[in-house]
Amino acid sequence: MRNRIKTLQKSLGESFDGYLVTGDTNMLYFTDFQGATTLLIPKDGESILYVYGVNYEGARAFANNCRVELVERGKDALKKTAKEVERQKLKKLAFDTMTFQAHQKFKKALKKTAKLEAKSEFVWRLRRAKEAGEIKNIREAARLTVEGMKTANETIRPGLREREIGAEIEYTMRKLGSYGVPFDTIVSSGPHSAFPHGGCGERKLQNGELVIVDIGATYKNYRADMSRTFIVGRASTRQERLFSIVEKAQDAAFRKMLRGTKASKVDATARDIIEKEGYGKSFPHGLGHGVGLEVHEKPVLNPTSKDVLEAGDVVTDEPGIYIVDFGGIRIEDTVLVKKDNPERLTTGLCFLEK
Amino acid sequence: MRNRIKTLQKSLGESFDGYLVTGDTNMLYFTDFQGATTLLIPKDGESILYVYGVNYEGARAFANNCRVELVERGKDALKKTAKEVERQKLKKLAFDTMTFQAHQKFKKALKKTAKLEAKSEFVWRLRRAKEAGEIKNIREAARLTVEGMKTANETIRPGLREREIGAEIEYTMRKLGSYGVPFDTIVSSGPHSAFPHGGCGERKLQNGELVIVDIGATYKNYRADMSRTFIVGRASTRQERLFSIVEKAQDAAFRKMLRGTKASKVDATARDIIEKEGYGKSFPHGLGHGVGLEVHEKPVLNPTSKDVLEAGDVVTDEPGIYIVDFGGIRIEDTVLVKKDNPERLTTGLCFLEK
Repeated sequence: MRNRIKTLQKSLGESFDGYLVTGDTNMLYFTDFQGATTLLIPKDGESILYVYGVNYEGARAFANNCRVELVERGKDALKKTAKEVERQKLKKLAFDTMTFQAHQKFKKALKKTAKLEAKSEFVWRLRRAKEAGEIKNIREAARLTVEGMKTANETIRPGLREREIGAEIEYTMRKLGSYGVPFDTIVSSGPHSAFPHGGCGERKLQNGELVIVDIGATYKNYRADMSRTFIVGRASTRQERLFSIVEKAQDAAFRKMLRGTKASKVDATARDIIEKEGYGKSFPHGLGHGVGLEVHEKPVLNPTSKDVLEAGDVVTDEPGIYIVDFGGIRIEDTVLVKKDNPERLTTGLCFLEK
Repeated sequence: MRNRIKTLQKSLGESFDGYLVTGDTNMLYFTDFQGATTLLIPKDGESILYVYGVNYEGARAFANNCRVELVERGKDALKKTAKEVERQKLKKLAFDTMTFQAHQKFKKALKKTAKLEAKSEFVWRLRRAKEAGEIKNIREAARLTVEGMKTANETIRPGLREREIGAEIEYTMRKLGSYGVPFDTIVSSGPHSAFPHGGCGERKLQNGELVIVDIGATYKNYRADMSRTFIVGRASTRQERLFSIVEKAQDAAFRKMLRGTKASKVDATARDIIEKEGYGKSFPHGLGHGVGLEVHEKPVLNPTSKDVLEAGDVVTDEPGIYIVDFGGIRIEDTVLVKKDNPERLTTGLCFLEK
């Protein structure tokens, strides 16, 4: 693995002489350790990870590419970080993210010795293009997710509760190697499937219903994301018709997931197909999002996105049609954008009647 | 359930004529719906929940105590909210939480028509004291958590991986009624147990080792939190000795969890016992935290906390001793503070040799 901190330091150029990381996942990205409070990256020299007592020994054992500093009980990590900024005479500091309250506190602690600017793009430039090792982990997360979807396929039957199916899916993924569940498992049946985030509750599946299953696994902190829509029993003509529209839209967008293509254009490829069939208003969300250490990250694939796809992007392709009082259909894969053709990391199991 | 929005409106007094909620869990607390972007609560009149298309129909179906407004594709929810603030001529607006970047955008959109102040305490005053219905849900989450811990007890044996035990625990809780897992399950064995957040990985349990199991279940959005420490096989004299210190500290703190008692004093009750035995430096975290819709919320129980316990607080009691290269011990219960004596919502299963 390349030293990501060094890459960030180089990218600061002349505009900044330091970078402050406070986002949990960003700190994990740079140091391989989650549980610190701030990470100060001066443009030159050693980075410092500030950690409270509860995670201090863990950071000393597992954090890479930085020095670990204890924040004593009752002391404030941001104030301690500000002192170091002053000591090192850093004058132009960029940061990834901060709450308004934290920003106020930090600014006060800096006593005007340094300028402070929100610049999350420095991190996203790095995090977006996945390294070989990251892709390997996402690939494994995707494999575990597909195993979970197979369990959904084997489990779904009339009379079973959404939550019971969710339990079986998660159990399969966990036993095979998933570290927890990166987002709340969705198994939404019948009328619930008409809501994109339809939950996974006590409702019992009934014959003839649509069931959206949207799940993910985690492998070494990396995630995958996959949705399939099942029919309990035989599909009606209308269900089949809607399914084939979503399938066609999903596949057409997939073929457009090429480096150099505007994300908005990929979205439009799927959206145009759905709109032409008269269901434009029934596709109320963007086509997809990046996936990596987080399940929703850059780039964004929707009609107003300014992003352009790059080789190394891992993104979802998930068009859907949702009709209140009828139900919904979504098909989603996690896709790797490459130098040449894109690759579906989650595959198989489309439109299965149960 | 009381109308929490009305209670908040009343609490604004003369200082503010509106309250803006942007925290996900806070919006859930007020409207029973998760997935909105902002909730504007004017001091008088109807509250407005701003929701993007993806969750609009869901909000219309499930959100309570407010009007649901669609944020059109490509439009900004904060700008739309700012327009409404201007339209209603709200002049003094408090808010719960915002990133620095969101605050800048919102302030600009307000065009100096309203003053803006961070005041999360308005929400916490309400969320802290749990209502009867909330306690019922936490009680059920605690029951499910105890069932998960029983599974840990039945599963732990030499040769099994931490992750495999985690999978069995979660499966039990999910099947019995838990909605997902409120935080990453911890099953940390041997040297890993020396880190309070020791993870749940590929390590195989070995005879004679300590294993910290820290788990939670979720019921109707409410959480519980519980830790037990197991021994694989027979305990050594030192393990037994350390265990009895932590047990004594946990029980002494529990007895101090009375309304009107300072949280720092409850922490000190446990800490003094551990310090007197010479392990003060090996207890590197606070005694506990509130539990409710989130697994870490107000009040805070640590040496520097300013909080005072109240009837209706649900808090954890979780002292521990952690020694690098030896292992760690933590005992944690979720405790309800009442008018009279406190009540452990998670019970049983202390110090089991396996």
